[in-house]
Amino acid sequence: MPNTRVIRISFCGLGTVGQGVWKHISANRSQLETRLGVRFELHRVAVRSLNRTRDVAIPAERITTDALAVATDPQADIICELMGGTELAREVTLAALRAGKIVVSANKALICDHGAEIFAAARKHGGHFFFEASVAGGIPIIKALREGLVANRFRLIYGILNGTCNYIITRMVAEGAPYAEILADAKRLGYAEADESLDVDGWDTAHKASILAYLAHGVWVKTEQMIVDGISKLTQADLRTTEQLGYRIKLLAVITRDFDLNEISVRVHPTLLPKSKVLANVNGVFNGIAVEGDVVGTTTYIGRGAGQDATASAVISDIADAITLLTTGRVVATGEASIELHERAGTTPKLAPLGHIRTRYYLRLTVQDEPGVLAQIASVMAGNRISIASVVQTAAERPDAASIILTTHESDERAMHHTLAEFAKLGCVLEAPLLLRIGDFHD
Amino acid sequence: MPNTRVIRISFCGLGTVGQGVWKHISANRSQLETRLGVRFELHRVAVRSLNRTRDVAIPAERITTDALAVATDPQADIICELMGGTELAREVTLAALRAGKIVVSANKALICDHGAEIFAAARKHGGHFFFEASVAGGIPIIKALREGLVANRFRLIYGILNGTCNYIITRMVAEGAPYAEILADAKRLGYAEADESLDVDGWDTAHKASILAYLAHGVWVKTEQMIVDGISKLTQADLRTTEQLGYRIKLLAVITRDFDLNEISVRVHPTLLPKSKVLANVNGVFNGIAVEGDVVGTTTYIGRGAGQDATASAVISDIADAITLLTTGRVVATGEASIELHERAGTTPKLAPLGHIRTRYYLRLTVQDEPGVLAQIASVMAGNRISIASVVQTAAERPDAASIILTTHESDERAMHHTLAEFAKLGCVLEAPLLLRIGDFHD
Repeated sequence: MPNTRVIRISFCGLGTVGQGVWKHISANRSQLETRLGVRFELHRVAVRSLNRTRDVAIPAERITTDALAVATDPQADIICELMGGTELAREVTLAALRAGKIVVSANKALICDHGAEIFAAARKHGGHFFFEASVAGGIPIIKALREGLVANRFRLIYGILNGTCNYIITRMVAEGAPYAEILADAKRLGYAEADESLDVDGWDTAHKASILAYLAHGVWVKTEQMIVDGISKLTQADLRTTEQLGYRIKLLAVITRDFDLNEISVRVHPTLLPKSKVLANVNGVFNGIAVEGDVVGTTTYIGRGAGQDATASAVISDIADAITLLTTGRVVATGEASIELHERAGTTPKLAPLGHIRTRYYLRLTVQDEPGVLAQIASVMAGNRISIASVVQTAAERPDAASIILTTHESDERAMHHTLAEFAKLGCVLEAPLLLRIGDFHD
Repeated sequence: MPNTRVIRISFCGLGTVGQGVWKHISANRSQLETRLGVRFELHRVAVRSLNRTRDVAIPAERITTDALAVATDPQADIICELMGGTELAREVTLAALRAGKIVVSANKALICDHGAEIFAAARKHGGHFFFEASVAGGIPIIKALREGLVANRFRLIYGILNGTCNYIITRMVAEGAPYAEILADAKRLGYAEADESLDVDGWDTAHKASILAYLAHGVWVKTEQMIVDGISKLTQADLRTTEQLGYRIKLLAVITRDFDLNEISVRVHPTLLPKSKVLANVNGVFNGIAVEGDVVGTTTYIGRGAGQDATASAVISDIADAITLLTTGRVVATGEASIELHERAGTTPKLAPLGHIRTRYYLRLTVQDEPGVLAQIASVMAGNRISIASVVQTAAERPDAASIILTTHESDERAMHHTLAEFAKLGCVLEAPLLLRIGDFHD
């Protein structure tokens, strides 16, 4: 096909994911080119260091350290921004969009922090921004929300969005080993970063939750407007007790919408999920997302969340959609128009005050092992109108102390906040309590 | 928006699904119209009986019994073929496609039997055929295979595609009641048709498997080219034994591709699935599909497979894609081009001979309760080089008989076929054995 259009793809960043993308495009090249009716060309590549060895051989004249030059090169059709970080990545993305390019990105932190600016730039200058790889790479969840479930409004979305946390919790359950030991092992195996905070403290999950909330509801929710808790305080006692209560602990993002109040809430926290739920059985590095649509009911999606290949699969699917746009002029219902659409339809929701979020709670308190302690605890909770559903008292890990594990009936964050403040003033409570939330979702 | 394009949607068939589609379009109308940039109009409706009461009020001048007239009406943009059956539905679909229309269909039997003719007609006359609702309505699996996983080739696809069978098996497990009793109950509740054969004998699953195989591999596989077994022979003894062995029984469609031999196979049968697999825990009327892509690894999709709302959600998603096509001229990678693409890419696979399919087996034999029987059984199997993995012998349901339940190591259909033929000649084997297959999928 001598007249076949050539699509020039450039990469800003050619690390693990970028190399994976080009490796898989090359491996399936004839099939992809036939399907899309084009020929691919690797146009230019920007990297931090020219000297590093890479799986993909790049001719010297096509490789540079100047990412902005690659992003704005007039000949490039598609810019894959796979460099990570939010500063240079933001500049590169905005520059490419202002030049009317299509940008494909896997950068969830960038989208969460600068999404509004990015989509505004795309709208203003006729660029396009694709980001399927930014959330749960192995799961085509963004396409599902935007196209497959277009008939639906979403009361509830919840999911396991961070493979590192799920891997750590899964191994803690399977092996009975403490958190710190599994984390150290995960670092050694490359499943956790040297600075694990982004993963285990919930921030990575929060970035992805922000993107899902934007797609489903057309609102950018900042991480500081969410509840964000991590997994680093979990102990074997918590895992054992929750197991006995019929639950598994998973770090979940939970996005709810109340259509009567027209409010949404976004939160990230370790959650007690009933064992019968599908996501309670999604283990290891896998991600899973449950979406409740008002028409379709609950649909669930499971797949690898990260890693070279899963992310590459998502980037290539975006490249394919980008090519359809380039060759047919199709303006898809991409996320860039989401806010505008919600605004035009008059459906933009407000953020629910965090204190109004209602759930059941799990509380582990380390207390002095002496008479009257449980009475004091129970009295504080009663004063805040929080009703206790179950209590287990065991020996604590430190001597002369007891561990009290409570579950509550439904209450709200405000009441729980006051309760924790009062606990802090009780002499018998020896440590900051561990607070988990129970996910009895009615889906 | 006075100049907004009006999209005229007609229905051939306005039963449960058709009424659901229009009900949900009406309920979310402003949001859908804003998102798609058009206005919807219910143009014409063809029904079998003009006198039936319906949830949707149709003006008398828009309703008719002449489905062909509706299908070829020059003013209509989209024809929803939701009438069922394969004869008039075929005529209506072909007539609409020959008139260059977009047809949206949920009719899996039609697609399985006449897909090649339908897609050829669409190609020749510039019509388009959308069919997301034909397989697992609540799960956007067709969009996932075609777009979200475009980077992948599929070694293995397996799924629970029939909600009725899954409902029956789930209740048999939960309640310990016999098949016939649960089936009768399912009929009373409307979960099974008066003639249950299409569901419980596996034909409905086979139709859907044919569509998935076509999408993944570009080949039309007829049901007579598959293994198709149903669930009607399952007993409580089978469910108990498989549970003890660490499995759950699910009626699965299994589509495999061998890329070295360039062969595919499609089969439908009750399958022993390890309890740890996600799909082993998909219960009730839910469907689930696991897809192993060479880039992304395994992704799994779960949702309601049928029913008014799940199917309506899928039909509306197709209508939305159809409108994108109408308003932007986008020619998506719809299934219609699948065969051509595989042919052009030189990747069209052959069908593997059924006898070559390899799997582990579960066999339940009702035999005379006397010495030497197990020796005769084992000898036949050894003669066919089938290696036994486990044996349990219990009292059979009939007096003076024993039940032998065997599992085997991996063998093939040809060896098992010969084994069953030899068993039939043994005097000690009292009934045709129950043969199930074990799904130790390496995904």
